[in-house]
Amino acid sequence: MEIIGLKLPLIKEGDDLAEIILRLLENMGMTLEDDDIVLVTEKIVSKSQGRLVDMKTVTPTEEAEKLADATDKDPRIVELILRESREIVLTGPNFIITETRDGFVCANAGIDSSNVVEGKVKLLPLDPDRAAEEIRQKIEKTLGKHIGVVISDSFGRPFRSGSVGVAIGASGLTALWDRRGETDLYGRTLESTRVAVADCIASAANLVTGDGSEGIPVAVIKGLKFTGVGRAADLIRPKEEDRFR
Amino acid sequence: MEIIGLKLPLIKEGDDLAEIILRLLENMGMTLEDDDIVLVTEKIVSKSQGRLVDMKTVTPTEEAEKLADATDKDPRIVELILRESREIVLTGPNFIITETRDGFVCANAGIDSSNVVEGKVKLLPLDPDRAAEEIRQKIEKTLGKHIGVVISDSFGRPFRSGSVGVAIGASGLTALWDRRGETDLYGRTLESTRVAVADCIASAANLVTGDGSEGIPVAVIKGLKFTGVGRAADLIRPKEEDRFR
Repeated sequence: MEIIGLKLPLIKEGDDLAEIILRLLENMGMTLEDDDIVLVTEKIVSKSQGRLVDMKTVTPTEEAEKLADATDKDPRIVELILRESREIVLTGPNFIITETRDGFVCANAGIDSSNVVEGKVKLLPLDPDRAAEEIRQKIEKTLGKHIGVVISDSFGRPFRSGSVGVAIGASGLTALWDRRGETDLYGRTLESTRVAVADCIASAANLVTGDGSEGIPVAVIKGLKFTGVGRAADLIRPKEEDRFR
Repeated sequence: MEIIGLKLPLIKEGDDLAEIILRLLENMGMTLEDDDIVLVTEKIVSKSQGRLVDMKTVTPTEEAEKLADATDKDPRIVELILRESREIVLTGPNFIITETRDGFVCANAGIDSSNVVEGKVKLLPLDPDRAAEEIRQKIEKTLGKHIGVVISDSFGRPFRSGSVGVAIGASGLTALWDRRGETDLYGRTLESTRVAVADCIASAANLVTGDGSEGIPVAVIKGLKFTGVGRAADLIRPKEEDRFR
């Protein structure tokens, strides 16, 4: 397995990511093979979708003002969090964890003020599974290869410190690999092994892409065999099966 | 970044993992360079430590019998879970989540009946940070290179389906990378970016090692620059800072 990071120019609203990635690969003399996976960090998907919000345009509702007071956060950010969420999961001093409209349980509804110009914040991409599907189809059509696409973000999590990569969008690969019923080295049946393949891919790429000034928002993963049918929504644990909610 | 999986012979109690890995690398004609990371899955560390338990030798206490009743689990497994744990976090139908004696919050105290002979179960390694340290020192002494070592397991997690890789032991690398204060592409300060590097490495390797009949319990990760000081215990979120406990 090999992961190659790709440096891209700064992305702006309306940019066609598939086209930009294809052009860059061509310039690098790099080819994609069947089963290769293209990982795209959410920040450039967001930017291409124009999901930047000028903070001056945000007027907090009374509900947002109250929650901002309780959490000691900027009321305009809280307003955006509420707009992006369908349920508040947990709040406390300087943190708000919600379920976003696409079903992700994360802090601040994934709203980020890093890597955007001063005075603006960035929302998560709209329908990232569909965004992954569109990128995949365009690349496959051009190159004639079967590839997978993962759109990643990095989230914190309970019990453990630090953030890890998470797949918020996926297309063309087995995002959740159900191995129940397979056997182990001794021929015993594996008990409950479902592997969050797309999240592992996102975490792997997270070591190469980074959130800082690296400017490496895309990576190509070679050497795996996970192309197939699946989407990142497969990785969302249904609320009724989640004992921590 | 590149990950190469290594097939090992079956490991038994008393085996010297560093020696076995070194011998295998030599046979493969593969060299380790400075900054390479050797990832070892917990199952072989456990086995080398003799952490297999014959179920016939386990007599459940009354507490274990009661919890087994409530969770519909084998009382002998519950007995072992309680012995391995310092706190019960959450229980329910067919699941027990505890904090293990080494501080990991996971299901069944990490006890596993896959990849061991019938009638036995496998406990998590004892003091896996120390086990990682010992493997690292032996490999470094032999090869004269600065490397990192990660001991991995795969855990489920709240909010998301499927398991991901988790570092339960680490030595010689920045397990938790604190980037707060660094700047992004626009020179803005990164707000709260602590990256769980060792967990991302464990998840990346999880795509190569697997839990099934693959028999690939070791991987070498090349091309990263995370050697330094750190241990897997750095990744355990202190209970008092964890709003989901």
